Amino acid sequence: MPNAKYDVLGIGNAIVDVLASTAESFLLEHSLRKGAMQLLDAEAAEQLYREMGPGVEASGGSAANTIAGIASLGGTAAFVGKVKRDQLGQIFAHDVRALGVHFETPPADGGPSTARCLILVTPDAQRTMNTYLGACTTLGPDDVDPDDVRKAAVTYLEGYLWDPPAAKEAFRKAMTIARAADRKVALTLSDAFCVERYRDEFQDLVERGVDIVFANEAEICSLYQVSTFDDALQRLRGKATLAALTRSEKGSVVVAGDEIHVIDPEKVVQPVDTTGAGDQYAAGFLYGYTRGFDLARCGALGGLAAAEVISHYGARPETPLHELARARGLLHS
Amino acid sequence: MPNAKYDVLGIGNAIVDVLASTAESFLLEHSLRKGAMQLLDAEAAEQLYREMGPGVEASGGSAANTIAGIASLGGTAAFVGKVKRDQLGQIFAHDVRALGVHFETPPADGGPSTARCLILVTPDAQRTMNTYLGACTTLGPDDVDPDDVRKAAVTYLEGYLWDPPAAKEAFRKAMTIARAADRKVALTLSDAFCVERYRDEFQDLVERGVDIVFANEAEICSLYQVSTFDDALQRLRGKATLAALTRSEKGSVVVAGDEIHVIDPEKVVQPVDTTGAGDQYAAGFLYGYTRGFDLARCGALGGLAAAEVISHYGARPETPLHELARARGLLHS
Repeated sequence: MPNAKYDVLGIGNAIVDVLASTAESFLLEHSLRKGAMQLLDAEAAEQLYREMGPGVEASGGSAANTIAGIASLGGTAAFVGKVKRDQLGQIFAHDVRALGVHFETPPADGGPSTARCLILVTPDAQRTMNTYLGACTTLGPDDVDPDDVRKAAVTYLEGYLWDPPAAKEAFRKAMTIARAADRKVALTLSDAFCVERYRDEFQDLVERGVDIVFANEAEICSLYQVSTFDDALQRLRGKATLAALTRSEKGSVVVAGDEIHVIDPEKVVQPVDTTGAGDQYAAGFLYGYTRGFDLARCGALGGLAAAEVISHYGARPETPLHELARARGLLHS
Repeated sequence: MPNAKYDVLGIGNAIVDVLASTAESFLLEHSLRKGAMQLLDAEAAEQLYREMGPGVEASGGSAANTIAGIASLGGTAAFVGKVKRDQLGQIFAHDVRALGVHFETPPADGGPSTARCLILVTPDAQRTMNTYLGACTTLGPDDVDPDDVRKAAVTYLEGYLWDPPAAKEAFRKAMTIARAADRKVALTLSDAFCVERYRDEFQDLVERGVDIVFANEAEICSLYQVSTFDDALQRLRGKATLAALTRSEKGSVVVAGDEIHVIDPEKVVQPVDTTGAGDQYAAGFLYGYTRGFDLARCGALGGLAAAEVISHYGARPETPLHELARARGLLHS
């Protein structure tokens, strides 16, 4: 888009994932809701960590994963999120900068440690997330550089930012600046239980605050308290907000006013771990969107990026998405 | 073996790996010797980390990987190694304990941080390792609990312990206790350049100090300064020390006095990352050895464990080795 230094500026919780293969029985024994994200305090996180199996650590965070996807597609990106000045914080910062992403949010010198998400991956490739927000609770409006927001074609915000108290203010500040600069604002609803926690505010955002909303089937049904996908779809139809709705193996549906596109899913030979599927869908979609591609092509790029990340362990692309998209005929340069 | 609480006690550097996919050109630009391990000081490690791509973190360390393999095969194991009381140290301790391994080495409260190994994996699946020893330099003889050594059928030591100054004393102390208790002592030569650094001492250990030695082709050729594998083999023949020699895709050769077994390799459909192949070979071999299996079967178990770890990213088994070995007919219960 004209004069945009960054295709996408992402604002989200800066989290290091701890991924562990887990038996179904472990979820039952610990009363964990499969597929959902729950928040843990420091003590509960320590206890769950003690009881879970050996892990693999990798930078995560929903919006940060999307930003990594934008970079993997060859786009330009910036990220705002709060780590502590500790080892996990160094890892998070290194990984996002190593992708060429602009990341200058100052780390917290004191207070809680860098956030961790204990991700239990069951043999059905589903992930169940248990998040200790740590330093993310210290993200505030001062961390949002107005200039960076103005330089981004799209500012992308995660619903999870409603959990740490001051992050919401950072979210609102960025939204106001972006709108004043005639830039686009995108939101992901993040998680069905997150939508339950903040339903009224999220409804308001979707209908009046943002230009683009990303949601999966459970999230959009929770937002409108309806029981079928089509009911949710009809609620979005005709609205000014562009909605990209993901449906796992059913593909996705893109709604823009009265225009509706039903996008086939990308085939995944062997799903391994669904962590980050929604994040990568958003990356593919926004990469296309910032280039002015038609909506069906944006949705197909989203599906392609999601398929890549489902096919292996971890929430960020392993194979450069730009190459995959070229091979698939979705990008030509 | 009779009265042994642990099949294997491992003593080694306690390291967290940082694995990153890397282009061949990166190795050339940074003058890194492919396939080798080099030691870095804190500053050089920071610089290399800044310049390398995004990573994935996982507990590593040569002997610790072997211990993880023993646990994955269903064996009992203990580990001695030094981390700092920091986030990476917690991760290392969690991962090894989550395998059911006895690990009670007290973490260092001050001094350098937990060790990291920056592992660059090239498209040919080779790994090039760059180690910052950090807290490992504070491992000393006091960290070796004589009782634990006496309780282990085999005490397994890594040649890398010759790098941090006080660790060598811990090594010698453990060796003395094990021998006095009529237990077995095993050594891995670790790395050809490590052998170069300590050739005389390693020759002495192999010929007089230990009962079992593990080495790959480059390491055993370096030890005896010979240019062909067979020359090295002839040097070992007839000695009291049992030698298990790994040869990558050529399989392995086991030498015990005048008995020589040439073991076929286990097929690997798609090698991804050779990190930990030697460590897992030692795990499979020692698991069989401590059960009194014949040497060919010990070697086959080693090859099977190595093949598992080569087929994915990271140095520790993902699929339970015990299940694989049963499916392969190498274990019957």
